[in-house]
Order: sequence, then structure tokens, then C-alpha cells
Amino acid sequence: MASSTSDDQENWGARCWELISAMRARSPLIQCITNLVSMDLMANVLLAGGASPAMVHALPEIEDFTPHADALLINIGTLSDAWLPSMTSAAVTSSLTGRPWILDPVAAYVSEFRMAACLSLLKLKPTVIRGNASEIIALSSASRLQGGKGADSSHGSEEAVDAAKDLARSSGAVVAVTGAVDLVTDGRRVVEISNGVPLLQKITATGCAVTALVAAFVAVAPLRAVDATACALSVFGLAGELAMQVSKGPGSLRVNLLDSLHGMDEQTVISGANIRYRARAGLVSKTNLSHEEKEE
Amino acid sequence: MASSTSDDQENWGARCWELISAMRARSPLIQCITNLVSMDLMANVLLAGGASPAMVHALPEIEDFTPHADALLINIGTLSDAWLPSMTSAAVTSSLTGRPWILDPVAAYVSEFRMAACLSLLKLKPTVIRGNASEIIALSSASRLQGGKGADSSHGSEEAVDAAKDLARSSGAVVAVTGAVDLVTDGRRVVEISNGVPLLQKITATGCAVTALVAAFVAVAPLRAVDATACALSVFGLAGELAMQVSKGPGSLRVNLLDSLHGMDEQTVISGANIRYRARAGLVSKTNLSHEEKEE
Amino acid sequence: MASSTSDDQENWGARCWELISAMRARSPLIQCITNLVSMDLMANVLLAGGASPAMVHALPEIEDFTPHADALLINIGTLSDAWLPSMTSAAVTSSLTGRPWILDPVAAYVSEFRMAACLSLLKLKPTVIRGNASEIIALSSASRLQGGKGADSSHGSEEAVDAAKDLARSSGAVVAVTGAVDLVTDGRRVVEISNGVPLLQKITATGCAVTALVAAFVAVAPLRAVDATACALSVFGLAGELAMQVSKGPGSLRVNLLDSLHGMDEQTVISGANIRYRARAGLVSKTNLSHEEKEE
Repeated sequence: MASSTSDDQENWGARCWELISAMRARSPLIQCITNLVSMDLMANVLLAGGASPAMVHALPEIEDFTPHADALLINIGTLSDAWLPSMTSAAVTSSLTGRPWILDPVAAYVSEFRMAACLSLLKLKPTVIRGNASEIIALSSASRLQGGKGADSSHGSEEAVDAAKDLARSSGAVVAVTGAVDLVTDGRRVVEISNGVPLLQKITATGCAVTALVAAFVAVAPLRAVDATACALSVFGLAGELAMQVSKGPGSLRVNLLDSLHGMDEQTVISGANIRYRARAGLVSKTNLSHEEKEE
Repeated sequence: MASSTSDDQENWGARCWELISAMRARSPLIQCITNLVSMDLMANVLLAGGASPAMVHALPEIEDFTPHADALLINIGTLSDAWLPSMTSAAVTSSLTGRPWILDPVAAYVSEFRMAACLSLLKLKPTVIRGNASEIIALSSASRLQGGKGADSSHGSEEAVDAAKDLARSSGAVVAVTGAVDLVTDGRRVVEISNGVPLLQKITATGCAVTALVAAFVAVAPLRAVDATACALSVFGLAGELAMQVSKGPGSLRVNLLDSLHGMDEQTVISGANIRYRARAGLVSKTNLSHEEKEE
Repeated sequence: MASSTSDDQENWGARCWELISAMRARSPLIQCITNLVSMDLMANVLLAGGASPAMVHALPEIEDFTPHADALLINIGTLSDAWLPSMTSAAVTSSLTGRPWILDPVAAYVSEFRMAACLSLLKLKPTVIRGNASEIIALSSASRLQGGKGADSSHGSEEAVDAAKDLARSSGAVVAVTGAVDLVTDGRRVVEISNGVPLLQKITATGCAVTALVAAFVAVAPLRAVDATACALSVFGLAGELAMQVSKGPGSLRVNLLDSLHGMDEQTVISGANIRYRARAGLVSKTNLSHEEKEE
């Protein structure tokens, strides 16, 4: 069992390296329709990682531009009425052309306006959804409510995991929950990623930026969205760990994060990626089984 | 007199430390409706200081969100017609729920459009107004003009102080004027803050960011707005001083400013805060007295 | 011939120093109507260089503000319908008041929406146009198409130079093409600038920011737009070279770039500026001559 974990670990490191190498080689074009706070860091994270960012959100150019993007990122952090039609149009275009698109439901729970936007975007079949525990729990719950299945408030300590799995199953998306330990699930398997440092939370838009990096990884491996998402989260967290060693606070951490991401080499990725399948991955609780039955 | 100044000095340092500690402990939620240039630095300054920034400005979510914010910051730096209703709605909501809100009248003097917006926001009773000398003088003058009292152009070297006191009295707000030496007044007392370094002016949005930090300090001491404003200006300036010691220019100063603000400890604050009541604080010039009489 | 090149080199260094000194002394007010991603870096580059940035783009204040700006920068990077009237109004105002204005046609080729906006702005007589090779070639070609002259697709390896010269002649603007080597032309003379480092391309908005610096240089030498543009590109690239010596990746390069630009001294500029007239500057190919004939 110990050696199996060790093999698994090595395997994930190799997958991370394979994907970051592919991203650097192909430099996928990532269309970002994102919030106003995150644009600078998001573009710089994509560039440092090896992708090509394009902040294109004007409705009249979605039709011309979106079909050329390798992946689409939609982030509702500073959503306004004027931007929602562009998000919808770009998501529809991505789906129609078979390109992955990623949803970041920032603070979905703070207003009906945001939640309504998220629920309408959810119907356009995102490939991946990335949020923190509160966002994923709120979105999962609202999604179930909308489907008339009633809210299940008995999640207890496993709330975020169950919410993520529920949301993955109901939406068809891979769902990532980031926090002290990150989780990625397709509704059955759950992968845990234990990279990163707490101080990253003291830098604005790091969550937004890592979602864009997820889009770039998924762009080069669209049929392996669970792997690509887990590896993107791991690589970003690992860049944070390396940066932390030479940083004195959130200002220098942000700078060194970009340097580390840009300079990351194979040995560092192989030895530093901290990803594993969750021990209980194969188990589905009785409650969840009954959910599945009701869904069928 | 010398010992009184010294005591006073110590006292202000202790107040600064008390307030920054309270802010770190409570992590107040600061809603920022701010200009597009400042969002990144403002959010990072709030995070480094210990507060929770939320850039929420869409009109449809003001009603849901603003009541949960501990303070509101409104900055008109890139004001457009579309944003003014959100600013108004959020300011009204803050006033109705008894939460402090802070106005940053960026470049109020450059257009009738900006000044008209500021004058209309002024009626919604901001708790604090923070600007540079030109902004405060222009706003104070326009405010008096609107009241039909005529412009007083005989301010001389004391122009900014008199303008700030006039504006404080007519608006009911605490008014802060930042520059080589910062001033904070409620219309009677004047506090001087002598922290900071000139190179901070070569970094965009430092003025905007410090106003947000004022909002965070006032959020944890809403009944002591003069103290909270003075302490926020002092702590930010002190972070600049510390950062300057290890910086080679405006690029590194911005990075180190965030590190210093995040790492600031009690001893540094107690010994470094440079705040005092202005010697002439209690004096009101004849001109100003007659102003007050006219106002009654 | 060798000494002539050497003299020429020294001369350009002196011109660069003269212009950066003038910019620092006068601190020209540069109105920037620019994309949402670039605002922070652009404002910081202008401040570090010695100019005064003003991100003013609301239509109701163009009339009040634009006549006070020393130069105007228009960048269509995140163009939306709502911003185009402001761009048009500001460009018209600049032209009417005899102030220089600079166009950055970011990704003009990605949508009809962008190209149509660029072509309409082109009619308002920009003083300088700065783009990468793809942008200038696309704009030059679209501009000729619109004039009913047909597209000339036989540019070969000299495509960007010929496109730039064509665009300069048809628009009356100085045209700058940035890349591994930058080119500046008024349609006849071609100046080559060989400063900069490749890693600058891994930082978002460096192209946008250098166009703003061009605006600041042209603001202090409006009648010498070729020189001012070449010197701005050289000084920015030189700041990048100096910064690269102490940087570990794109994060630290961005920080050090601002420090280097702010601290740049005469000796560094004189010895580091790498500008020369293009050897073939005086030659006009047969194809181009026939173009000119058709244009008359």
C-alpha cells in the first residue's frame, strides 16, 4: 500500500510535467471574461505558465474571436448586466465548437443576481467549475433547489466534498474546491491536492488566476479534465511553495510566484507535486446513492 | 510641553496599534466601488492590512450585499454614468444601516461631471472624505458655492486647512487632506500625520489604497473616525517608510509596502507613528467664525 | 562609415537623454483611454518615467478634460461599444487643439468590430500608431482595402516594413512596429531600435505601456514624432535590459523595469540607446513607388 501510494505520487508528478510541457509547447489561447480586479494577475499567471491570455469580452466580437480560443474562462467576480450576454454567447460558442470552458462562480452566494447568473451559465455545460468551499456548497445547493429536489443540509464535515460531487453529477462538470487541501471530482473519483501556502490568500485574485491556469491545462488535455485540473492546482500551489521560501510577505510572494511558475523545471514538478486519490474515493454514502437514484 | 508632546506621541502609537490589531482580529468586510486603475493595489493593501476587500459595484446586488459590509468605500477616479447609481444606492444603504462610508473625490476639479457627482454624494453624509489639497479645496469651494455662500479665495498658505475645516463643518464628515504632511479634521480639531515617503506618489493608486485602509480602520472604530483616519494614514505611511529602506525605486517600493504593512508589529507602530494635534487646532480664524455664523 | 555610425549612435543617445530629461522636467499630462488589463502597469510606467497619467474615459468629461492633456493615448485592447464614442470625442478634441494623440490597435485583426473601430479612428489623424507586426500588417492592409486599392500580399520578408511605410503614408502618422527589433517610420525614413529583452513579452501590457511612454515623449517634442517615438522605445527597452540583470523571471522583471526606468541616468542612456537609421532607409522598392504613384 505504501509503495502503491509512492508510485501514484510519481505518476501524478509525471502527469503534471507532461501537461505543463504541453502547455508551454502549444501556448494555448485562453479567452478570459473575468472580473476587473483579476485581469492583471490572471494575464501574468497565464503568460508565466506558458499560455496566451486574451481578455476579450465585448459582445460584438465573441462570434469572431471565441472559435479561435483553445479554452474559455468565465469569472463573475465583478459581474454586471452588460457582461452577462457576452458570457452566455461565449459559453454557447465554446460548447458548439467543442472547446472546454471553465466557470469561476466568485462569491455566488452574496446576491441573487450572482447566483441567477451562475445557474444560467451552469446550463451551458461548463467543463470545469472551480470555487472555494462556500461557493461550491452554495452553487450545489441552489442547483439542487432549482431542480426541485430540496436542500440537503445534513452534510456535516464532509459538506464540501458531498456538495462538489453532487454538483459534478448534476452539471456534468468536473468540480474543484480549493482551500487548505484542494479537491477535484467528476462526481465519483475525488483527487486531493496538497500544494500551496496560506499566504496566497492574502494576495487578491490568486483564486481567479489559478482557475485561468486550469483552463490552460484543460486546453491541452480536454479529454482528461480531472487530471488537468488537479495538475494545474498542484503546479500553481507548488509555485507558491517555492516562492514562499524567498518572500517576506504578500507583496514579494506575488512577484516570486510568477518567477517560480515561469522557471519551474521537471525535477521540481516531479518531486513537489502532492496529489493523490482520496482514500474514500470509491465509496458513495447512502445519502448520495439515494440522490443518484432520485436523479435517474 | 515637551513631555506632553512625548506622551501624546506615545498615546497615538498605542491607538494605532489598538486599531490595526482590531482590524486584523475582525477582518472587516470593506465594499469598494472604486476606479479601474486602483482595484488591484487597493484589494492587496486591504488584504495585507488584515481586512477583507469586496469589489462589488453592480446595481442589482447592492441591496443584497451592502448591508453585510462593515464599511463602504466610494472612489470616483474612473467614474462613468453607469456607476453613479450604484454609488448612490450603496451610500444610501450604508447610511440607513448605520455603517460608515468613505468618499475619495479623485480629481473632482477636472470636470463638471465629477464635481456634480461628488456634490450629490456629499449629501448622502459620508463618514470620512479623503483627498489631496487640490481635491479638498475644490470640493470645499464648490460645496460652499452650491450653498449660495460665495467662494472665499483668501485662504493663503492655510488654504487647505481652512478648506478641510469648512468642508468638515458643512458636510458633517471627518476630512483628511494628504500630502507631505497629512491633516485630519472634524472641523474643529486638526491632527497632523507626518509619516510616508515622497516616492509613494510615483506609484499609481496609493492615495486610493490608503482611503480604503481608512475605511477598514473606521469599520472597527466607527465612533472614533478622527482617530481611525489618522491612524490609518500613519500606518500606511509608516509601511512606506519601512519599505523605502529596502527599495530601489517605485517598482520595489510597491512590493515592499505590502510586505511591510502585512508584517508590521507593535514596537514598530508605537515608535514609528508620527501623529500630533496641530498647535493651532483650537483656534478658529475670524473669517471662519463668520462662516459658521452665516451657516447657522 | 564606421565612425559615422558611431557618431550617429552617440547622437541618438543624446536625443534620448534630452527627451527623457524634458519629460521629467515638464511631467506632461497623458490622458489614457486604455484597456482594463493595462491600466495599472501603464500608469506606473508613466509615473516611473516622469509623466503624469490620467485614466479619463467617461464621455461627459472629455470636453472638460482633454484640452488640458498634453497628449492622448487610445488603446482598443478591451474595446466595448460604450467606450468608442469617448475615444472618438477625445481624438477629435486632441486634433482640434493641436495636441498629439497615439493609437495602439491591439489585436486589430481578431474581429471586424476592432478593425472597424481602428479604421474609424485612423481617419481622426493619429500622430503615432504603435503595434506589433501582425497588428500593423492587418491595419495597413485593411486601410488599403478600404481605400479601394486592393490588398498587396507580396510583401515577403519585408512585409512589416512595407506595411508600416504604407500605413504611415496613407494615414500621415508615424508608425512604430515593435518586436525583436523595433522599427519607426514616417513612410520614408526607417529607424531601427535594438533595445529590450524577450522576457518583456511574458509580462502583460508591456506593449500597451510602451505606447503610453511614446505618448509622453511625443508630448514634449510634438514636431519630432519620429525621434520621440524611437527614443521612447529605446529607453523602455533599455530599462528592460537593466532590469533583466537583476531579475529571476517575469514577476521580478516587471518590478525592476519600473525601478530602472525611474532611476535611469545620462550615462546609461547615452551608452545604452541602440538606435540607427535603417541601411535601406532611403531606398524605395519599385512596388512601393508604384503604390505612391497610385496614391497621388
